[in-house]
Amino acid sequence: MTTTEAGATHGYHKQKAEHLKRLRRIEGQIRGLQRMVDEDTYCIDILTQVSASTKALQSFALQLLEEHLRHCVADAAVKGGDEIDAKVDEATKAIGRLLRT
Amino acid sequence: MTTTEAGATHGYHKQKAEHLKRLRRIEGQIRGLQRMVDEDTYCIDILTQVSASTKALQSFALQLLEEHLRHCVADAAVKGGDEIDAKVDEATKAIGRLLRT
Amino acid sequence: MTTTEAGATHGYHKQKAEHLKRLRRIEGQIRGLQRMVDEDTYCIDILTQVSASTKALQSFALQLLEEHLRHCVADAAVKGGDEIDAKVDEATKAIGRLLRT
Amino acid sequence: MTTTEAGATHGYHKQKAEHLKRLRRIEGQIRGLQRMVDEDTYCIDILTQVSASTKALQSFALQLLEEHLRHCVADAAVKGGDEIDAKVDEATKAIGRLLRT
Repeated sequence: MTTTEAGATHGYHKQKAEHLKRLRRIEGQIRGLQRMVDEDTYCIDILTQVSASTKALQSFALQLLEEHLRHCVADAAVKGGDEIDAKVDEATKAIGRLLRT
Repeated sequence: MTTTEAGATHGYHKQKAEHLKRLRRIEGQIRGLQRMVDEDTYCIDILTQVSASTKALQSFALQLLEEHLRHCVADAAVKGGDEIDAKVDEATKAIGRLLRT
Repeated sequence: MTTTEAGATHGYHKQKAEHLKRLRRIEGQIRGLQRMVDEDTYCIDILTQVSASTKALQSFALQLLEEHLRHCVADAAVKGGDEIDAKVDEATKAIGRLLRT
Repeated sequence: MTTTEAGATHGYHKQKAEHLKRLRRIEGQIRGLQRMVDEDTYCIDILTQVSASTKALQSFALQLLEEHLRHCVADAAVKGGDEIDAKVDEATKAIGRLLRT
């Protein structure tokens, strides 16, 4: 992970426990999908569960993005120089990837 | 038709093993997200992984939908009567939910 | 348009007037976006209007898809032979394109 | 801050001509959809054109968002005070609306 700044605290640091709880819930939803397939559940019910899991993933991403804008991007703006351009550029690309899923 | 028809085989039945393998991989991706948050990985890297997991979920849903159209919806059309309307109606609603995530 | 069957009536034929009305409304929304940009309206207000136009386009697509499933796909199933596979295949690909926007 | 600040220049001001050109092209695509419906074009071809128009709208929105982050949000961060929170909050909500379409 080239852009990893492991150890450095990021915008989401204060919400870490909340994010991990959300992700464990999503993990449980994906296991639930496996049970539904295993038990030959009707296709439409499985698709409904997929939409719920995708929605949960997106609201996690949106929360993370908000914290990134509020901290990493805002800090770069305050620091001045050209770091803000790089931060805005990569945030926009990340939003673009989320839009295409 | 109760929406859960445990035991009845559905369009995806023949691909069951393949679907379970995909879902286990997605489950692994979600656990990977937990590790990334736990290790204070940079926000943008986490968002990139969220897009990958969402994409994997959507391609699973699309595969399931295709099998549902080819079997459940097509069979209802051949049977005649008004079952086809119910099938098309619920398939369209499921696609609508997927579009809104 | 290789797959055009111009002149043949399709699933949406009965709803033609309604579809044209929707599309004219969306056209009006896009002209509204041009006015907003021209009048230096605040970015967030423009983005809100983009979401409204995209939503209107998607609900038009979903309506068209429903009629396609109910008529073109169902008719192919009743006819038998391998036409149903081609119809399901192209419908799934169309849904996939909609999901990626 | 009223959300409509006609006259004030925003992040996208320098790209105004380019944005208007894009929007006119999208307007043309929507008129193209009307012709396709009017000429009884095959449903799948129309759905393909809807995806192209939605994609064009989204890349316009992404471009506008990038300029908003680079100017309006960054300026608020530099100014200090609580304006940055309001800017990040409304930008995140706008991204959320785009994700749900």
